[in-house]
Amino acid sequence: MPILNKDMTLCISLAARPSNIGTRFHNYLYDQLGLNYVYKAFAPADLAQAIAGVRGLPIRGAAVSMPYKEDVIALVDRMDPSARAIDSVNTIVNDDGVLTAYNTDYLAIARLLRDHSVPASHSVLLRGSGGMAKAVAAALRDAGFSDVTVVARNEGTGRALADLYDFSWQAEPGTSTADLLINVTPLGMAGTDESVQSFTDDAVAAAKVVFDVVALPAETPLIAAARKAEKQVITGAEVIAIQAEEQFVLYTGVRPTPEQVRAASEFSRA
Amino acid sequence: MPILNKDMTLCISLAARPSNIGTRFHNYLYDQLGLNYVYKAFAPADLAQAIAGVRGLPIRGAAVSMPYKEDVIALVDRMDPSARAIDSVNTIVNDDGVLTAYNTDYLAIARLLRDHSVPASHSVLLRGSGGMAKAVAAALRDAGFSDVTVVARNEGTGRALADLYDFSWQAEPGTSTADLLINVTPLGMAGTDESVQSFTDDAVAAAKVVFDVVALPAETPLIAAARKAEKQVITGAEVIAIQAEEQFVLYTGVRPTPEQVRAASEFSRA
Repeated sequence: MPILNKDMTLCISLAARPSNIGTRFHNYLYDQLGLNYVYKAFAPADLAQAIAGVRGLPIRGAAVSMPYKEDVIALVDRMDPSARAIDSVNTIVNDDGVLTAYNTDYLAIARLLRDHSVPASHSVLLRGSGGMAKAVAAALRDAGFSDVTVVARNEGTGRALADLYDFSWQAEPGTSTADLLINVTPLGMAGTDESVQSFTDDAVAAAKVVFDVVALPAETPLIAAARKAEKQVITGAEVIAIQAEEQFVLYTGVRPTPEQVRAASEFSRA
Repeated sequence: MPILNKDMTLCISLAARPSNIGTRFHNYLYDQLGLNYVYKAFAPADLAQAIAGVRGLPIRGAAVSMPYKEDVIALVDRMDPSARAIDSVNTIVNDDGVLTAYNTDYLAIARLLRDHSVPASHSVLLRGSGGMAKAVAAALRDAGFSDVTVVARNEGTGRALADLYDFSWQAEPGTSTADLLINVTPLGMAGTDESVQSFTDDAVAAAKVVFDVVALPAETPLIAAARKAEKQVITGAEVIAIQAEEQFVLYTGVRPTPEQVRAASEFSRA
């Protein structure tokens, strides 16, 4: 029985089609850590009025999902470098009426490259040029990677992303190889192109690290191939868990243990 | 563990100093009735932005307490007669972006006069001239009571309230008697004038019905004297429970049973 109390701090998410994942992840950790917080997903009737509500009620934090990640920029007071780097917001924090926008996808990718000790000297093939590819490209640049090739059929967005960071661009992976392969397209994603492996077995064999941002299924064809070839892997599930952990830290000031984050992630998907 | 889900409908309260009573009352009944709702109290940082949030998030309903009951009138779309009768709002209902304001204190008093079968031919002494006294006076007038005397030291508000409904006014109760005594002052309230009996034993002896709007303590000196004199009594606890029940019905469209309302009231004060 969700019996709330008047002093609970509210955090929310704003998405056209909310999922239960964030609601379950955050509420689980609030409970585990004994924090007097509560989290609730919303499909806003009006974005500007919803953000006014964040200020006015007040609400401590708001996760921002499709299709609001860019529109919300005009409604906040400050852009953290993580959001400014890619002109995309997925987290808003309300400090006494001052709204600061962050992008914890960027923060998660930067942290994963660090935690997995991926050297910046690695050559990189980055497949994709959408919003998440922008976060990956910015994190690569900021971590010191310079030998990066953006692989994207869409020449407009692909070239623009490559040019932004002085990376190169090509339309198809072809027979290219690199130390670090990163897939940021829907290739391999459940329900879309789930049987498609976003880089060939030959590319996987030539790589040292394979990173698939696709989180569903947890084991994409690319990740399965990389594990079989005994390569170091970084998964989309890690991105989701860490970006949620970083949101959690921004909202509460408390960092859960890796074990707690793992348990919350499992709970959120149950 | 309050594990919420994304489809829950949110109702809130807006008060400078929220209590836990509404939060516990409503969440208890949501659970008992299996409604996918959740209720949370807020102390708004900004009233207009909070109401924007009601529209924008959206939020289904908002209880409005001190000091917002009048200020909120300019922010809603429609005034129900219950709120218009006394220019005071304690409940907002959001129907697809259209905000309608109600006053369930008025509705509760009108219903209590009906449920307790108090005849409109009864003479009335109404002690007090504040916001709740306005709700009582309007409910008396609308129920057909005409022999009503407003007793209030404040001649400005007392006379104004009496004149509004063609009632009479006097500054002190003196030796006046009436069939129905109604106290709407803080006399007898815990923490303020708790030992003061708002009408004399003689007035109680001459009355048929005694109504004390003060809810804390449940047994005020006036109610205690009325019970001792074996008079019909109406208590402030009944007003609070019924106004909350009417809010609940407005938000959910579901009317709980009297037993459920009683259990929720008890739970809300535990």
